[in-house]
Amino acid sequence: MSAYRQLVDRFNQISAIRGASAMLGWDAETMMPDGASGVRGEQLSALASVAHEKITDTALSDWIEEAKGEGLQGTEAANLREMERGFQHANALPNDLVAALTKATSHCTHVWQAARGDDDFESFAKAFEPVLKLVREASVAKAEAFGLSQYDAMLDEFDPGMREAQVDQYFGELQAFLPEFLNQVVDHQANNKTFKTLEGATPVSAQEELGKKFMTALGFDFNHGRIDVSAHPFCGGVPGDVRLTTRYNEDAFSQSLYGVLHETGHAMYEMGLPEELRGQPVGQARGMSMHESQSLFLDMQLCRSDEFLSYALPIIRDTFGVSGETWEAENFTRSLLKVERGLIRVDADEVTYPLHVMLRYRLEKALLSGDLQIKDMEAAWNDEMKKSVGVVPDRVGNGCMQDIHWPSGAIGYFPTYTIGAMVAAQLFDTLKTQVPTWAEDVQKGDFTSVFAWLRKNVHHKASLYATPELITQATGKPLDVGVFKAHLTARYLAD
Amino acid sequence: MSAYRQLVDRFNQISAIRGASAMLGWDAETMMPDGASGVRGEQLSALASVAHEKITDTALSDWIEEAKGEGLQGTEAANLREMERGFQHANALPNDLVAALTKATSHCTHVWQAARGDDDFESFAKAFEPVLKLVREASVAKAEAFGLSQYDAMLDEFDPGMREAQVDQYFGELQAFLPEFLNQVVDHQANNKTFKTLEGATPVSAQEELGKKFMTALGFDFNHGRIDVSAHPFCGGVPGDVRLTTRYNEDAFSQSLYGVLHETGHAMYEMGLPEELRGQPVGQARGMSMHESQSLFLDMQLCRSDEFLSYALPIIRDTFGVSGETWEAENFTRSLLKVERGLIRVDADEVTYPLHVMLRYRLEKALLSGDLQIKDMEAAWNDEMKKSVGVVPDRVGNGCMQDIHWPSGAIGYFPTYTIGAMVAAQLFDTLKTQVPTWAEDVQKGDFTSVFAWLRKNVHHKASLYATPELITQATGKPLDVGVFKAHLTARYLAD
Repeated sequence: MSAYRQLVDRFNQISAIRGASAMLGWDAETMMPDGASGVRGEQLSALASVAHEKITDTALSDWIEEAKGEGLQGTEAANLREMERGFQHANALPNDLVAALTKATSHCTHVWQAARGDDDFESFAKAFEPVLKLVREASVAKAEAFGLSQYDAMLDEFDPGMREAQVDQYFGELQAFLPEFLNQVVDHQANNKTFKTLEGATPVSAQEELGKKFMTALGFDFNHGRIDVSAHPFCGGVPGDVRLTTRYNEDAFSQSLYGVLHETGHAMYEMGLPEELRGQPVGQARGMSMHESQSLFLDMQLCRSDEFLSYALPIIRDTFGVSGETWEAENFTRSLLKVERGLIRVDADEVTYPLHVMLRYRLEKALLSGDLQIKDMEAAWNDEMKKSVGVVPDRVGNGCMQDIHWPSGAIGYFPTYTIGAMVAAQLFDTLKTQVPTWAEDVQKGDFTSVFAWLRKNVHHKASLYATPELITQATGKPLDVGVFKAHLTARYLAD
Repeated sequence: MSAYRQLVDRFNQISAIRGASAMLGWDAETMMPDGASGVRGEQLSALASVAHEKITDTALSDWIEEAKGEGLQGTEAANLREMERGFQHANALPNDLVAALTKATSHCTHVWQAARGDDDFESFAKAFEPVLKLVREASVAKAEAFGLSQYDAMLDEFDPGMREAQVDQYFGELQAFLPEFLNQVVDHQANNKTFKTLEGATPVSAQEELGKKFMTALGFDFNHGRIDVSAHPFCGGVPGDVRLTTRYNEDAFSQSLYGVLHETGHAMYEMGLPEELRGQPVGQARGMSMHESQSLFLDMQLCRSDEFLSYALPIIRDTFGVSGETWEAENFTRSLLKVERGLIRVDADEVTYPLHVMLRYRLEKALLSGDLQIKDMEAAWNDEMKKSVGVVPDRVGNGCMQDIHWPSGAIGYFPTYTIGAMVAAQLFDTLKTQVPTWAEDVQKGDFTSVFAWLRKNVHHKASLYATPELITQATGKPLDVGVFKAHLTARYLAD
């Protein structure tokens, strides 16, 4: 057997073990009885440790070197590159640093969960200190292994090929634009009436039915996936068995519905990955920015378009058995596109969301470099929020303690949300040109042309290319902040 | 670290990996979309292969030998014995035999599923031939490794310490008794009216509620378990996260209810295993006979007693909102204890069930030894059915092709059903003497004294002793077929 073939078998095995973990992670959030969390922790930890053994096995580095001489081309060459990337990421950190990180982040997220509600910054800071210290060590080790800067080494894990210098440029342009644009939008919307759901009009059972109708219409394959309820919506499972979750809010069904559409975007990406590359590194989704671009493509681009709403609104009214001015397009659209200065990232609209993200990007870089001390986090956060979003947290639980990312050691993740939003805008913009029938199709509830385009240009390319190249191939140019700005301007200031 | 401590760590890891498999097995039967069976197969196969690597690691045999010199006592010594048993079972078969068996049984069960419905004995026989051949090879290898006869080596996997000679004695005594007893019972019941569920009176939602009420009353811990629906009821999961399943039949709620009670018996055993020994071989349930004794203790002993029904019937009537003669104790009990000559084991009552099992026991021994050829199976089965149960299969799908056990290579499993039934009778008999308040308690719906006794005498003993010794410790004497016969006589011929 060739060295490459041995690598393929090994990565299939690693992928199956990680897939098993993914299913158990889904179960923990949806089905598992509370008392079982300890037992589940042991199962997940055993699988993680076995997967780690399998990917840090020294045989792999021999096979990788040998396979380099086997004259691989195209997909196989790309797969070997991704295998090496996976091997290097897994081997960059010494085992005791990995163990210490796992312990510290597990403790810190646990402390954070209680401390956030109590606005107990002191307890949080105490638990976060070792996390930050160990993340710094990890970033130094990875920087060395990959020949990157510390922050780039962190970023690369979530978005392969993305670099700080690039993000600085994107975010610089966006930051120069958004605060003043936000002022204009808020003024513009000041006198808009907005949609109010009639109490009791949108029972959970009807919301479930509605979500499944749209998922089916969009192409979600219920023979290879399902939808359930969890406290925090997510898209889990594996490409052949996608498990997405949502939560229902009877007083605000559109929140739940757009949550379902958002997760369906993630799901369609996973379901659309090339089946023949399943289990192989090159067959995986291309990082978090691209993943977020797929969820936001549905959530923010396609499904808030007039075309989608002209198809969807009659179905919504029919499912709930409602009618009247409140449920007409104009009012409904206004409620979907309402822009408000708020404190909480996950509740933020499309215009303010990037401001929340860019603030975190600046602060996490400063935390990593040591320019910002943990004790000064709250003040820095509040100051930035005032300048950027125009509001100041009423309490620290609604401020710098609101997200799970930092307590869990995920530094380098936040930028992918906003890069994803920009990629989504650029993909939708390109689709409009390249698929002239899109509007007509979508108005009829026919999404085959849209997804055929996404499949070909994004899903099927899996991890064959780094993110920047993938964007260029799909849209004919590198990521262009101007497209996103134009989208926002057209949507929020045109009427 | 001592060798024993290294073994403990390793078996904890193996147990966690197997636990992960158990959860995924549950998911496959309850939650998984149909299209995901291929992906799930890869996950389960990867976990099985990793668990196999971990238990056949040559380091284990060194640790085991070293640990024998570490002066272990009591529970630790018993654990070492069970570790060695697990290691020997895993190592007894060469890897290519294991692989060939997995392939042949997987193919045969697949063929069997379709062939059974079509009465296609020929296709079944063709697929079963390699299975039987490989099972024979496996039994020879295990016989050699354990110094046992071929059939004993198979039996030992399902019921550690149980031997063919012993089973021959039990089954000889029972076979001499049951056919004539069955005649008497059938005559005795000839003029009994039996219970009829009123159509529409027992909706699924009310059946669910009822099942959960009784599970809660019996002590099932919903913080460490749940109940769902599957095509074939089973009790899965792991001790800290027990997943049982049932199916509901609106026309025969007592079938569903006693299915739930049966699985709850299995669940209570798993939940009652000593927490401090979790993950260790000695902390596991003691084989299939003891497991079946726990399900039948509820299903056939406790929950069909007058004492249980005097507590349960008012709750049943109340939950369904029904009343009248049909729902009174006499009629209800008669329906629960109705004895009928039938073709299908899984539908059989308490009296005929052992006849179905003993027939299979005789035939599977003959198949293993070569005294019975596959081509003669059907005739031998039909002949035995006529002599033993008094009915002849209308078609082969209702005859020798009805069970999944043989197609899946499980020879040596069947006897555990009837040994379990006898153990259940003997345990219940002992409980009545040792816990004088049991009747009073159960009539009040208080099961703490019953389960305190089971916990102490069965559950907490886990795998500390071989089955025969466990029975003697719990009941003061070896398994005694007379107790089971006396139970049947008292229940079915007394009134």
